[in-house]
Amino acid sequence: MKLVNLYNKLRPELIKIENQLQKEVDSDHLLLKQTAQHLLEAGGKRIRPIFVLLAGKFGNYDFDKLSKVAITLELIHMASLVHDDVIDNADTRRGYPTVKAQWDNLTAMYTGDYILARSLILISQFDNQEIHKILSKAIVQMVEGEIEQIRDFYNVDQDLPNYLKRIKRKTALLISVSCQLGALAVDTPRQHIINIKRFGYNVGMAFQITDDILDFTATSEQLGKPAGSDLKQGNITLPVIYALQQKENPMLAKELRNLIASPKLANNIEHAIQLVKQSGGLEFSTKLSDQYLAKAFDVLQELPDIPARKHMYDIAAFIGKRDY
Amino acid sequence: MKLVNLYNKLRPELIKIENQLQKEVDSDHLLLKQTAQHLLEAGGKRIRPIFVLLAGKFGNYDFDKLSKVAITLELIHMASLVHDDVIDNADTRRGYPTVKAQWDNLTAMYTGDYILARSLILISQFDNQEIHKILSKAIVQMVEGEIEQIRDFYNVDQDLPNYLKRIKRKTALLISVSCQLGALAVDTPRQHIINIKRFGYNVGMAFQITDDILDFTATSEQLGKPAGSDLKQGNITLPVIYALQQKENPMLAKELRNLIASPKLANNIEHAIQLVKQSGGLEFSTKLSDQYLAKAFDVLQELPDIPARKHMYDIAAFIGKRDY
Repeated sequence: MKLVNLYNKLRPELIKIENQLQKEVDSDHLLLKQTAQHLLEAGGKRIRPIFVLLAGKFGNYDFDKLSKVAITLELIHMASLVHDDVIDNADTRRGYPTVKAQWDNLTAMYTGDYILARSLILISQFDNQEIHKILSKAIVQMVEGEIEQIRDFYNVDQDLPNYLKRIKRKTALLISVSCQLGALAVDTPRQHIINIKRFGYNVGMAFQITDDILDFTATSEQLGKPAGSDLKQGNITLPVIYALQQKENPMLAKELRNLIASPKLANNIEHAIQLVKQSGGLEFSTKLSDQYLAKAFDVLQELPDIPARKHMYDIAAFIGKRDY
Repeated sequence: MKLVNLYNKLRPELIKIENQLQKEVDSDHLLLKQTAQHLLEAGGKRIRPIFVLLAGKFGNYDFDKLSKVAITLELIHMASLVHDDVIDNADTRRGYPTVKAQWDNLTAMYTGDYILARSLILISQFDNQEIHKILSKAIVQMVEGEIEQIRDFYNVDQDLPNYLKRIKRKTALLISVSCQLGALAVDTPRQHIINIKRFGYNVGMAFQITDDILDFTATSEQLGKPAGSDLKQGNITLPVIYALQQKENPMLAKELRNLIASPKLANNIEHAIQLVKQSGGLEFSTKLSDQYLAKAFDVLQELPDIPARKHMYDIAAFIGKRDY
């Protein structure tokens, strides 16, 4: 089954979640209402809600419980995106102007605060303390990941473990938590929860590595933001780390290192991208992403053979092949 | 009893809270550790923890329960201050350089996010759902207040209700919640909780109005930040609103209005401050602050006559007379 069929299948639930998201970010305050609506309209794949719903199929599926979890997670994700756009100085995301571009950095900061705060109200409605703890720890780690990202901007000496830790916190963690909490909210057996969580982690890692590859290979139209913008703004992702660290072509590594260190990086970005492509960094990254996906598939085998398992398989397979 | 005696009396508890705050903001991440420590060292009056402890005296006083509430509230307050400094473009607070000045806006944004997230971990440890709900709603309203403040920068048409709503969200709410939750955490009788909360609200309103007066009357040394900086950065507080709206001296109001609208406000700030002083805006503000304090004293009469009531009275009296 293709991913679009999965979306079609989940459509009634996703529409309800979308409507609820609208309600949750509503504010008496006009500016906050506008920025939050703008974010919602800019869309997104709603991957986290989908994982919550699918994970819930392994327990006593209850849409009311699951939708609360799904909306909370999507709000946390949205809040992190708005602050992320400030850090990345990003003007577009998914083809839409970002809040910081359409308004300004301060408005983006408070829009993020506001959406996070709205998610806290939702969290306060769960009577399961374990859910609270998991969510609050995840938020702490996400913030630590974001601030590590700032520290590592233009840092040409970072290595693979460093990168993996960063993307775990930036992306894999919340996807993993989406899977875990979807299962947890509807009393799924413990052993299944552990596996569903591991699935989410591995898919999340592959998802972010693929994102970092696409920044080099996709067109600006496909990305909804300028291609090559990660490197341009000093965000050193896996393909670049590989190019900088490989031993086969030390001249290439040195040239790239100098380009990144130069204040004229933005002017020479096309050349820098070419060097990364020549280095084999994209192939290495694809291989690593595939390894995470393979782990995700393995974990799925441990789960009961219900349709949701097949859907999770489809999503993971899609992530490995997506070109946007 | 003077306020310093109250601090002395509460010293053992406050030292424990200070140590716990240190532990709570600790991070593996060096930069976050530094910024959070910096914030802690910059101090503050720890008004919110003090109110939590005092409120707890009206119930089954339990320091372990109360200190958790106190630390959570102080963390939420600290997080809001860091983001506030970004908005206010403030370089010093309490005589210390702000995080945004010592590092930068982005670091300040994430330091605030981090400290708020740490407070969420604490919140997740309370088993009382009512506490969660009160805290998360308070955070939403605080953020709404902050963003209203941005909207109202340089807005010479705002009025008294507008100002009152803004300072309620900015300051009075969290002080009120400190009183309320201190009482709630240790099973204080409902009627007392209501009065303690009302006391906190009225004291909080007086506290912020006094703050806004001091920006005109205190020296930079007393304030720990440049005097007159509110107006300079376009933050239109009560004394200014009074000056702009009073009918007795329309020429003064017009002149002030033009000054604030002018791009050269910063150069003419001394003259603008003089106009505000001449308008009677400070006297009006002091009178309003006193009215809130009088309400606070009235509410105290409804509470049992225990030493904590006297301490609350002392704090309120101090707020009315403080010059820093």
